[in-house]
Amino acid sequence: MEAKQYIEKNRTRFYDELFSLIRIPSISAQPEHQQDMRACAEQWRKLLLSAGVDTAEIMETSSNPVVFATKIIDPSAPTVLVYAHYDVMPVEPLDLWDTNPFEPVIRDGRLWARGADDDKGQSFLQVKGFEIALKERWLHCNVKFLFEGGEEIGSPGLAEFCAEHKEMLKSDIILVSDNSMVGKNVPSITTGLRGLAYWEVEVIGPNRDLHSGIFGGAVANPINVLCKIIADITDKNGYITIPHFYDDVEEVSAAERAMLAEVPHNDKDYAESIGVKALFGEKDFSTLERTAIRPTFDVCGIWGGYTAEGSKTVLPSKATAKMSCRLVPHQQHEKISQLFIDYIYSVVPDYVTVKVTPMHGGDGYVCPIDMPAYKIAERAYEKAFGKRPLAVRRGGSIPIIADFERILGVKSLLMGFGLESNAIHSPNENQQIEIMEKGIIAVAEFYKEFGK
Amino acid sequence: MEAKQYIEKNRTRFYDELFSLIRIPSISAQPEHQQDMRACAEQWRKLLLSAGVDTAEIMETSSNPVVFATKIIDPSAPTVLVYAHYDVMPVEPLDLWDTNPFEPVIRDGRLWARGADDDKGQSFLQVKGFEIALKERWLHCNVKFLFEGGEEIGSPGLAEFCAEHKEMLKSDIILVSDNSMVGKNVPSITTGLRGLAYWEVEVIGPNRDLHSGIFGGAVANPINVLCKIIADITDKNGYITIPHFYDDVEEVSAAERAMLAEVPHNDKDYAESIGVKALFGEKDFSTLERTAIRPTFDVCGIWGGYTAEGSKTVLPSKATAKMSCRLVPHQQHEKISQLFIDYIYSVVPDYVTVKVTPMHGGDGYVCPIDMPAYKIAERAYEKAFGKRPLAVRRGGSIPIIADFERILGVKSLLMGFGLESNAIHSPNENQQIEIMEKGIIAVAEFYKEFGK
Repeated sequence: MEAKQYIEKNRTRFYDELFSLIRIPSISAQPEHQQDMRACAEQWRKLLLSAGVDTAEIMETSSNPVVFATKIIDPSAPTVLVYAHYDVMPVEPLDLWDTNPFEPVIRDGRLWARGADDDKGQSFLQVKGFEIALKERWLHCNVKFLFEGGEEIGSPGLAEFCAEHKEMLKSDIILVSDNSMVGKNVPSITTGLRGLAYWEVEVIGPNRDLHSGIFGGAVANPINVLCKIIADITDKNGYITIPHFYDDVEEVSAAERAMLAEVPHNDKDYAESIGVKALFGEKDFSTLERTAIRPTFDVCGIWGGYTAEGSKTVLPSKATAKMSCRLVPHQQHEKISQLFIDYIYSVVPDYVTVKVTPMHGGDGYVCPIDMPAYKIAERAYEKAFGKRPLAVRRGGSIPIIADFERILGVKSLLMGFGLESNAIHSPNENQQIEIMEKGIIAVAEFYKEFGK
Repeated sequence: MEAKQYIEKNRTRFYDELFSLIRIPSISAQPEHQQDMRACAEQWRKLLLSAGVDTAEIMETSSNPVVFATKIIDPSAPTVLVYAHYDVMPVEPLDLWDTNPFEPVIRDGRLWARGADDDKGQSFLQVKGFEIALKERWLHCNVKFLFEGGEEIGSPGLAEFCAEHKEMLKSDIILVSDNSMVGKNVPSITTGLRGLAYWEVEVIGPNRDLHSGIFGGAVANPINVLCKIIADITDKNGYITIPHFYDDVEEVSAAERAMLAEVPHNDKDYAESIGVKALFGEKDFSTLERTAIRPTFDVCGIWGGYTAEGSKTVLPSKATAKMSCRLVPHQQHEKISQLFIDYIYSVVPDYVTVKVTPMHGGDGYVCPIDMPAYKIAERAYEKAFGKRPLAVRRGGSIPIIADFERILGVKSLLMGFGLESNAIHSPNENQQIEIMEKGIIAVAEFYKEFGK
């Protein structure tokens, strides 16, 4: 039967399986969820076996364990490696969720839950696409699955794991469903990813919180100093002022910028959809360019002093911020990280102490659109969505993708079926049921042709 | 008997009484302590009665209740009004306290607890000084006590209460023990206070937390914007850039600046005592000037985005800061508050929304040193400390002091017995037992002479 019929026949079981994964709060960033990480890996091991793999095991890394599974139909056939992650982002602020993030509900044609899209929903559609291809005897290739538990914290230990298991992970193409399409009616395949560098910066002033009346005026306030440091990192045109930051930024050709300009996009609608009156970004670049081919600087979190109710006057002893840069191809995250650290230490005034801790990072990635696997994916999407997908670069980061290329020598095909409105990393994360099921069909159709 | 002997004879009872006040966590800034406010007022009512007042009652205001007590020895005699507050500051961060802030301990000659100094310890010494004068028959004046429960949140409702009870509060001088001396061996009386203005500023960007990879670069980050706003409020010389901010600042005479320069002070020791490598403040002013006769701008608290463990990438929907200015005599807090609000709204870029909420404020104060009551206080200090006290302006704010002068037409005498090392408003607040007891003596000696 066709993939669509197979889904209809098995829909209840499919969602039961997906829900069993979502209900495990596998938040990698929060140490209290250590047990949940292992529980989620174990649940995946069972689901992969019932989907039809020959072997599935939990393997240790220096961080959370990975799930590794294989279906070998013929040692001489080409091999697909499916990469995904079973960890999810923290859910704070909890009060902004309409329903419990770990109790999935289907409402208005969408599945609502943490991980509904990123990446439990999307990894699930990969496995179900495989299951259909296997059961319907369309499979012409071997398939391996590598599901990790630390993508949201920068995949610690995974690059070493790959380096230690190169033979085991040997493959011809890596399939990844962990990002989004341009729009519901604009299917697209991601052909570029941004890199990432992330730091925590702590500014330390006096050895205790001081009375702002008694000491105020004579002692530098660490919050004021931190704000000044942050303010100076970008200029009024949105450019990053760190010396040599732009040195290695890929100069994107006029032709590619023209192609990007063809992606359906309207600044007014975009601003409205996120509730801002105006957009702001680097001068002389469009919104799509700013989010896809240009690096950025964002403060992800800041705290210091008195933050509870009321009006306590205090000159706090320290202030801290989490800061990140999205990077573009050719910018090396270690190099950028060091430039940032050197810059911060060079501008810190002598009346405070500063501590910069690099947190994690990864390089950007480019997928060539003339690869045979890319062409097969293009046709598979066309069958699922009724339209040829656009090839677009996107702004997100999956640092391990660049590592796969460097360590395993294998290109990744980024078959992401999310949507920007899915609110990943935010309260009320969701996934459209229709898109998810078209994603399953696209994956099944990919297997129909790949290796034939 | 002399005050010193009286203290020795009654020391155990004295500290039991003080501890009973400290054990009630009367934190006015935190609504969950509503019950504690009333309990603390009630405890004061009992202690005032046992100290010898004729009447003591709890009176309602539009905010926390006040305790009002009287000892009328002769309706035609002059009257002292003792003002104090029974509320305390919040205790966060709790992990920096060596012992429970609400379980007082005496160690190394100091009393350690929230309120040990500000203002439970200092209000207690006022009451004990009165008790001694009364019991030893030194009292030549009537005494009234007005203890409020909202000083740390800007005394809400107290000015109205004073306006409504002018006759009841009629007096010739107000005694206040709620600030500090220059040093343990440098007794001093405070002759000037700074005013205060306080705001909460919220910068709102997108309608939800966004993925910083997908949206980063195209949408202004509210934390970055808030930091820029804060950074621009002061310049590199420590001056406040808000237009007309300095218009009404009192031009302190060269003679008074010279007197201030005589106060024992050493920048190096001062910096070491608070653990900073260098001091920072307004150019062309000394440390003592910066903290006493010049206005300031400090961020008291800031928060936004992801502040838990780990490295979540997010472009947050909003960021908030609590900000305050210390003001000097002649600067009106309402006028400065409006200048600040107008300034913030004038600089906010169109890609975010900003909300400025004024929190509380008060004007500065000057006490003339040729007042007879001041001269009596000077002699009382000399008896207690063996040294004539210095007359100094200080940097703290007690907004209600300016209100007393405006509404009741009565000057205040600021007999503060704190020390900078007492860490008020901070973890490990404490008070030196020796100084506290000398304070009791000074108050008793004041009564010996006043009204004679």
